[in-house]
Amino acid sequence: MSHNTFGHLFRVTTFGESHGPALGCVVDGCPPGIPLTEADIQGELDRRKPGQSRFTTQRREPDAVRILSGVFGDERMAGPVTTGTPIALLIENVDQRSKDYAAIRDAYRPGHADYAYDVKYGVRDYRGGGRSSARETAARVAAGAIARRILSGVTIRGALVQMGPHAVDRANWDWEEVHRNPFFCPDARAAALYEDYLDGLRKEGSSVGAVIEVVAEGVPPGLGAPVYAKLDADLAGALMSINAVKGVEIGEGFASAALRGEDNADEMRPGNGGAPTFLSNHAGGILGGISTGQPVVCRFAVKPTSSILTPRSSVTRYGEPAEVMTKGRHDPCVGIRAVPVGEAMVACVLADHLLRHRAQVGAGIPWPFDKPVEPVLGEP
Amino acid sequence: MSHNTFGHLFRVTTFGESHGPALGCVVDGCPPGIPLTEADIQGELDRRKPGQSRFTTQRREPDAVRILSGVFGDERMAGPVTTGTPIALLIENVDQRSKDYAAIRDAYRPGHADYAYDVKYGVRDYRGGGRSSARETAARVAAGAIARRILSGVTIRGALVQMGPHAVDRANWDWEEVHRNPFFCPDARAAALYEDYLDGLRKEGSSVGAVIEVVAEGVPPGLGAPVYAKLDADLAGALMSINAVKGVEIGEGFASAALRGEDNADEMRPGNGGAPTFLSNHAGGILGGISTGQPVVCRFAVKPTSSILTPRSSVTRYGEPAEVMTKGRHDPCVGIRAVPVGEAMVACVLADHLLRHRAQVGAGIPWPFDKPVEPVLGEP
Amino acid sequence: MSHNTFGHLFRVTTFGESHGPALGCVVDGCPPGIPLTEADIQGELDRRKPGQSRFTTQRREPDAVRILSGVFGDERMAGPVTTGTPIALLIENVDQRSKDYAAIRDAYRPGHADYAYDVKYGVRDYRGGGRSSARETAARVAAGAIARRILSGVTIRGALVQMGPHAVDRANWDWEEVHRNPFFCPDARAAALYEDYLDGLRKEGSSVGAVIEVVAEGVPPGLGAPVYAKLDADLAGALMSINAVKGVEIGEGFASAALRGEDNADEMRPGNGGAPTFLSNHAGGILGGISTGQPVVCRFAVKPTSSILTPRSSVTRYGEPAEVMTKGRHDPCVGIRAVPVGEAMVACVLADHLLRHRAQVGAGIPWPFDKPVEPVLGEP
Amino acid sequence: MSHNTFGHLFRVTTFGESHGPALGCVVDGCPPGIPLTEADIQGELDRRKPGQSRFTTQRREPDAVRILSGVFGDERMAGPVTTGTPIALLIENVDQRSKDYAAIRDAYRPGHADYAYDVKYGVRDYRGGGRSSARETAARVAAGAIARRILSGVTIRGALVQMGPHAVDRANWDWEEVHRNPFFCPDARAAALYEDYLDGLRKEGSSVGAVIEVVAEGVPPGLGAPVYAKLDADLAGALMSINAVKGVEIGEGFASAALRGEDNADEMRPGNGGAPTFLSNHAGGILGGISTGQPVVCRFAVKPTSSILTPRSSVTRYGEPAEVMTKGRHDPCVGIRAVPVGEAMVACVLADHLLRHRAQVGAGIPWPFDKPVEPVLGEP
Repeated sequence: MSHNTFGHLFRVTTFGESHGPALGCVVDGCPPGIPLTEADIQGELDRRKPGQSRFTTQRREPDAVRILSGVFGDERMAGPVTTGTPIALLIENVDQRSKDYAAIRDAYRPGHADYAYDVKYGVRDYRGGGRSSARETAARVAAGAIARRILSGVTIRGALVQMGPHAVDRANWDWEEVHRNPFFCPDARAAALYEDYLDGLRKEGSSVGAVIEVVAEGVPPGLGAPVYAKLDADLAGALMSINAVKGVEIGEGFASAALRGEDNADEMRPGNGGAPTFLSNHAGGILGGISTGQPVVCRFAVKPTSSILTPRSSVTRYGEPAEVMTKGRHDPCVGIRAVPVGEAMVACVLADHLLRHRAQVGAGIPWPFDKPVEPVLGEP
Repeated sequence: MSHNTFGHLFRVTTFGESHGPALGCVVDGCPPGIPLTEADIQGELDRRKPGQSRFTTQRREPDAVRILSGVFGDERMAGPVTTGTPIALLIENVDQRSKDYAAIRDAYRPGHADYAYDVKYGVRDYRGGGRSSARETAARVAAGAIARRILSGVTIRGALVQMGPHAVDRANWDWEEVHRNPFFCPDARAAALYEDYLDGLRKEGSSVGAVIEVVAEGVPPGLGAPVYAKLDADLAGALMSINAVKGVEIGEGFASAALRGEDNADEMRPGNGGAPTFLSNHAGGILGGISTGQPVVCRFAVKPTSSILTPRSSVTRYGEPAEVMTKGRHDPCVGIRAVPVGEAMVACVLADHLLRHRAQVGAGIPWPFDKPVEPVLGEP
Repeated sequence: MSHNTFGHLFRVTTFGESHGPALGCVVDGCPPGIPLTEADIQGELDRRKPGQSRFTTQRREPDAVRILSGVFGDERMAGPVTTGTPIALLIENVDQRSKDYAAIRDAYRPGHADYAYDVKYGVRDYRGGGRSSARETAARVAAGAIARRILSGVTIRGALVQMGPHAVDRANWDWEEVHRNPFFCPDARAAALYEDYLDGLRKEGSSVGAVIEVVAEGVPPGLGAPVYAKLDADLAGALMSINAVKGVEIGEGFASAALRGEDNADEMRPGNGGAPTFLSNHAGGILGGISTGQPVVCRFAVKPTSSILTPRSSVTRYGEPAEVMTKGRHDPCVGIRAVPVGEAMVACVLADHLLRHRAQVGAGIPWPFDKPVEPVLGEP
Repeated sequence: MSHNTFGHLFRVTTFGESHGPALGCVVDGCPPGIPLTEADIQGELDRRKPGQSRFTTQRREPDAVRILSGVFGDERMAGPVTTGTPIALLIENVDQRSKDYAAIRDAYRPGHADYAYDVKYGVRDYRGGGRSSARETAARVAAGAIARRILSGVTIRGALVQMGPHAVDRANWDWEEVHRNPFFCPDARAAALYEDYLDGLRKEGSSVGAVIEVVAEGVPPGLGAPVYAKLDADLAGALMSINAVKGVEIGEGFASAALRGEDNADEMRPGNGGAPTFLSNHAGGILGGISTGQPVVCRFAVKPTSSILTPRSSVTRYGEPAEVMTKGRHDPCVGIRAVPVGEAMVACVLADHLLRHRAQVGAGIPWPFDKPVEPVLGEP
């Protein structure tokens, strides 16, 4: 991962600031021949876009995407397909209110990247946080929509499983419910609670954190690589790169520290077709950095929105004391809109590893069950 | 991160299996002119090496390191220094007992990478886990010893803060205590408890997980980069790449999800010399992916050792049912020896980002406090 | 170099097809604080743009560039400067005549990438060559304009030194002449000859190749790295990546094969300030992959334009015989417009290596002349 | 390409100095299941190793290779195979005569990397040129032997086609002859001439350059990628990275500059099985950066050995004038032993691109000839 590029073979390079003319990305390495239209990408962007309920920022951004390159279709084809060349996506910024930020161009907002960017670069676009704004995640979601097209047979779904101190009840889990409330919450009862809870926080000018869970089902076994390109290592880096994320877990995560070996082991028994059936999934679908075929389960913690109406002590870039209160238009819980972003990052990592696996081992996954090992000369 | 290479400018490529002739690494990108001897590296390796107490594996490996390239000194110099060329390090395996593994060459040990490697590659070195063995972390610790030499002024220390369900009492924290007990535990009282606890587990043929905390003090502000080369994203990927790690946190970590914005904000006031003084460190020293000058604080969860004497249900590579009980010689809590490994990974990430920062912004960190921004043409 | 990204620390990712909506690039890794406006880039693009004389394609493309991100200025600043975040550049295509290409959508033009793309990807944007069109080089020239801003004190100039069989007379070399004729030719007499020669070729529906020389003066000594990141290796890869290039030379190039050791050695004598004065430059400013401070001299050969009016035998994508004659609007000698492209690639490679050098060795180049080696602990 | 690593998916990292304890490499990304023994690699190393005739250096190095990791075989298998994990190769240095170099530890040898390394790093291992010695190419040849195993069906052969001013006569070309003379020369008559010519040069204490041609037959069409990962761009970078190389050509190379479009075009006619038959190969098997299925043809120019007995003017690292005459043991024409090195680099580039192609497009190359384009959803 280098600066603003993510991935090794399925490579996403994003650009753009919150209040600049546009943001977007270049997706390089996508296989050819995959049908792709702007509508395919727009559908995912619409799930993340702001202003869809009173619980997210009221900034009005249509987040309309244009494909600038990398797809082609003529009158003899059923529709445009990817060509294997880089796919550039452009989203113009429409509803900037940059004057909102004049007050904080010199004062560092606590919890934000303001001070860190200034001390690093000596100059920054302070409008709306510039490059450090979560608006950048629109580009990730757009790239994730393309990654999903590569992962046919894989279902990637995210859900908000904790808001502030309130966790969902897993006994109530219903994936359909995620689409019915503005929190991407799989527990209808928790969603009702969150509504009141968040209204209260907004009135107090406060904000709160959240925990998101993303589950990928249908992931073929064998994705990942030993040591430094482990599937879980890449997932951890990808999820931690999302704005405001402070923790990442795979499978049991931190709870595994308290377990004994015999309780954490995922036992197996012979399954249909030779592949083993796992009796539990403490591992979260990954062993030794390589997928096992079980669902890949990850969670990440999002800190409370740093832009709050409650005044906080800070300093200016000239070393003077300042009291900072962020007006603007903000999400009281940035964790909510992080759900589609988390899904997108998981999709990008899996697509990247699918291509990497295909490069080293081939399209067909070698099947070890039927007979003693008889290695043969590797394809080509 | 690609396969077996870690880092972008300070690049570490490791190789070797648990029961092969040797393991080691190539460290590429190290600046020239840094005094370096085998003893400098051996000191760090000795902290990780097995067989130092009854609480770690009884395999007897001296882990003696040889420097094969990249340093030079002649009779006119005070001692050998790095030359800027790749530094190859070699550690020969000495105490393999490969016959211990004949029993499990076909049966998959639950919780281990056996099945995942087999399903991916179709062939594997099953002796001691082959490439998936934690013996590979010796190469990481060796590389970390070189990384530390680049980070003058930075102190990186790790500690075991939870074993099984038993967390340390932070009121008792004493960094000196870490060197006095076999658990790298900073709380003398907890260490005494762990001794009995682990003896009990060993007798029962069981194992347990742990949580490790690594703190880096003296990290200059400005390390990291926006979006995909965030310092915390690279730390998360690096720590999650360590064997058996299932979760990573920065600063407040998962606890931040339950906080309100005003409680999570790290307030600032004017400090000496212009830089702000932070009044708290919920962020763990990183904002927007960039270091702030506060201590960098990360934690990671290690699952219980999967090699246990308690029999577990499994399958063979030919799809037959099997009961697996791992005899061999194993750590009842692999989290213990993960402490120096965690430190090494943090050192490697920080060294890499120091070089990256120097490339883009220069050796001197621009100082934004004294006057209005007057950007000048970048060096040279 | 991966697919569509070029460079390691100064990274350029380009996108776009000849007849798609737009082309452009993302420049990542540019240092902060460098004044940059669209006009700075436009100046370089105007040197490459088509339709500036009767000797280049008559396609009318203004090649107007927009900066979408990565620069910032407010009313308190003298003008916009780079911020260290990715700089996205957009050039819209304006004068496509896609119907020109209907005739060749199924027939492979000899010498073009048509067959190679089709056999690789199974689908391609055939309009104007799609991604394989030299229009992509506009993005390179734009990126090169930014690279030049990093290389203060370095002068990078290119010249056409051979057209068809006609080489320039080096005794007539005048860099000012390059701006006075439409061939970027440094020899006024040769330029006059080329005018007639090329008019003749155009009338015959033919085309011709060329050799370009790029010279970089003021390159600091020490840029480059051993073995695989040699400055000359990266220059060779960069120049060979330009459309239609079939050969690359550094310094004496192929002529060095015929030299004896004593004739090829660049002797030195003590110079001012301690650095040696070289008595010749057979090496082209690079020894062991590292710059010596002498001018870096490279040459590359461009094959004749493959789009010609003379009919050639070919096949269709369905395996039928075809006779192909390319009408459209084309450069009779693509080598001419390759001059600013070659300069841009050299600028990008040098900028990349300047940043890499700064990362590993620091901003100051260590000076070995004044005293016996006394290595000191590397900065920080 | 970064510092000392070469390749993207088939990645080779080399280490070691001419007079250090050992040199070697780590090959990462090799597919699993490929039979591989030390003898397979030794065979290639023996072709490059010094002291095999009076026309190469008399240093006696057995260049015996040890495989340290990445292969595995037990008593149930026919022999060791690659496992997909990194393959580390070690070659110990045996016949160093470091005292030969005391005379030149402070004086810069003209044409060598001495000055460039010193000005970059401030310190260097001057014994035998340290890291800049061509001994490093032993590691390349070892890696190339593994690359060849991946390229089943591809034949890669190199030949010396010019020594000093004397080119071979292509009418006499016989690949078998390459094994019969100590020059890897395909023209028996030229080889006889070279013998006398080189004896004369050696007696005069001089040296001479050469041109090498490498031809890869059986390369599948479709390898390479647009723009910056062009097959020819990667070949050019790889060949230029070999010590003493000053020029690289593909196909017609520099001669193409003098050609007219109709003479340079490789015409096609329908061939057997649908793929076109090319009527010529001016392109050298690559169009638009992608292989066409024709033989890939490249040439590179090697400058004369810089280590000569004829005294040359130079300076010391302290700025004093010096006269340098290199005794030691040297190749009078380093171009000779560059033949197997050039083959190895071509093999590594092709192996890397084969894996890259397989990742993006799949194992099967789409076949465009039989019917109108009907893109289908990309695998999986």
